[in-house]
Amino acid sequence: MRVNDENYRTIWLDDSGVAICIIDQTELPHRFIIRKLSKIEHAADAIKNMQVRGAPLIGVTAAFGMYLAMLRDSSNRGIESAYELLLSTRPTAVNLRWALDQMKDKLLLTTEEQRIDVARYNASQLSDEDVELNQLIGEHGLKLLRQFSIKQGKVRPLRILTHCNAGWLATVDWGTALAPIYKAHDAGIPIHVLVGETRPRNQGASLTAWELGQHGVPHTIIADNAGGHLMQKGLVDLCIVGSDRTTSSGDVCNKIGTYLKALAAHDNDVPFYVALPSSTIDWRISDGVSDIQIEERAPEELSVIKGVQESGEIVEVKIYPQGSNVSNFAFDVTPARYVTGLITERGICEASKAGLRSLFVDQAYV
Amino acid sequence: MRVNDENYRTIWLDDSGVAICIIDQTELPHRFIIRKLSKIEHAADAIKNMQVRGAPLIGVTAAFGMYLAMLRDSSNRGIESAYELLLSTRPTAVNLRWALDQMKDKLLLTTEEQRIDVARYNASQLSDEDVELNQLIGEHGLKLLRQFSIKQGKVRPLRILTHCNAGWLATVDWGTALAPIYKAHDAGIPIHVLVGETRPRNQGASLTAWELGQHGVPHTIIADNAGGHLMQKGLVDLCIVGSDRTTSSGDVCNKIGTYLKALAAHDNDVPFYVALPSSTIDWRISDGVSDIQIEERAPEELSVIKGVQESGEIVEVKIYPQGSNVSNFAFDVTPARYVTGLITERGICEASKAGLRSLFVDQAYV
Repeated sequence: MRVNDENYRTIWLDDSGVAICIIDQTELPHRFIIRKLSKIEHAADAIKNMQVRGAPLIGVTAAFGMYLAMLRDSSNRGIESAYELLLSTRPTAVNLRWALDQMKDKLLLTTEEQRIDVARYNASQLSDEDVELNQLIGEHGLKLLRQFSIKQGKVRPLRILTHCNAGWLATVDWGTALAPIYKAHDAGIPIHVLVGETRPRNQGASLTAWELGQHGVPHTIIADNAGGHLMQKGLVDLCIVGSDRTTSSGDVCNKIGTYLKALAAHDNDVPFYVALPSSTIDWRISDGVSDIQIEERAPEELSVIKGVQESGEIVEVKIYPQGSNVSNFAFDVTPARYVTGLITERGICEASKAGLRSLFVDQAYV
Repeated sequence: MRVNDENYRTIWLDDSGVAICIIDQTELPHRFIIRKLSKIEHAADAIKNMQVRGAPLIGVTAAFGMYLAMLRDSSNRGIESAYELLLSTRPTAVNLRWALDQMKDKLLLTTEEQRIDVARYNASQLSDEDVELNQLIGEHGLKLLRQFSIKQGKVRPLRILTHCNAGWLATVDWGTALAPIYKAHDAGIPIHVLVGETRPRNQGASLTAWELGQHGVPHTIIADNAGGHLMQKGLVDLCIVGSDRTTSSGDVCNKIGTYLKALAAHDNDVPFYVALPSSTIDWRISDGVSDIQIEERAPEELSVIKGVQESGEIVEVKIYPQGSNVSNFAFDVTPARYVTGLITERGICEASKAGLRSLFVDQAYV
């Protein structure tokens, strides 16, 4: 998508071919900085420190991390240790494991000599596939948004609430939840996106608002607390969010606070959609609330915040009282009963076992 | 309550008798600063700029503002213009009007010569009454917390989630939602308070956590987004919040985000209580969602945040991208059906017309 009127992906192979480039998302929205990763440790750190984040992009970064590992050590032991290091970076994202499994399986089937080429090829493939999948999600979502737009008679823009960042910055390109929005905007359907700030890391305000702004999509940042009120007042036509992990029964594990928005949508008859590539589906589990371990992250994600001073200097400030405890769960689970539909690369289905199996009978084994 | 081991109220008459002192709450939690207000305009500004906030404290500050006005002009015109100026400061808090009406009625019944004394006496009375009311709320709430504590067998602290600040800083002393918590803590019931940060102004993190810390009550700050997850995981025993305005049918208008917590409590069978003095009840209205005008405040409350740099310097930083719109609704309405009970100065009742009338038949006229 567009940044300062140039097209970018979030991750790409460096011209040298022995390093990868990423957009450092911890610097947004204040600075647009590209970082070069030339070792697997860099890739692991980039995931861990959330320079890259978003389930699909984490998967692709891990795949490229395997490629960087093969450049140094393409033995079986090299594969195993790279796999373990990368897998340990983020516990929740299911397609981290999915991408790593794909890479490992393919690498173990080839000779040590071929592994560098195989790793580069397959990581690039995963990257391109992600773009294709997101485009498909965008196309299916576009049809949905067109229906909504026709239904409300185009008297005003369609008001779509989203949470966190499931935009192109969370993927290689296009995004999941935002793909339908970009497609609709590009197709001339008037859209206004309500962007939940998404404390503690503010991915909504820092990333979603930034990328929508760069692409010219009208939007308004709101406090996470405001979602319920806006829905109660009829100011939201529908919600679309992403998913970090989706269970076989359609429960959705996504950024902390998603569940609260889904409850408000349910209480006010606002359709609540989740956009996801099937790689986020964890077919092994059904009950998201009991079966998904929720990542707890550092308290400083809440108590310290980065911003720009009037002088233009970027600084970090502590905003909490001395001595207060802080807890920081990163995700929550929205039960399938609060999800109107899942927008996937194969179409839109009900958030249920039957719904998911109707689209993914070849993947489902439950 | 305690600050640095001394007892304070949030507002008091200066020794000179012709000025009032307040704790400047916009400086917390980083600095504890007392400001002297000697003109009605200072009082109006202190309310408008939220140096004082919280429905009960706003009412008392307005009452003292009427006293300051009488010092300058005790004519009927002086009363009217002071009333209008103070009433215009905050549109939502119903006991701003309630306190001003009380003051105006009493002042209009006396001669111009007596008005300074009458204003001082009545403002001080309102202040003392607020403390008494909150102590009563605290006593009724204490009984409730004792029951909860016995029920869960005291194997661990009672975990109470609160939102925003309905502590002593929101009142003259003791607080509303926090009064039962202080009483229970002082009575030796182990309590752990989960404090929602309360974006955009962070009153939970900046004020509630600060005052609990000063009093020695164990607590943990959480992102507003985390309330649902914690309830889903059985980590919250009950919720207690305050109210800025309560309708005759028990709908509760409180800080934005309260409604979302109430929805999550309802979805997870967590009792959700609202503590309030009857002065917040607006008997003229019944349906809070349709009848209460929600105050919209400046976008900078979201986009700019104040904190302490490592050097100790307190600075403001901008945290949003250039050019993004921001919307900032300050309150929302929690329908009575999501409220387990109302903790008032006269006892605990159901959040309903019948419930409120059972306690306040002398006040209710609907």
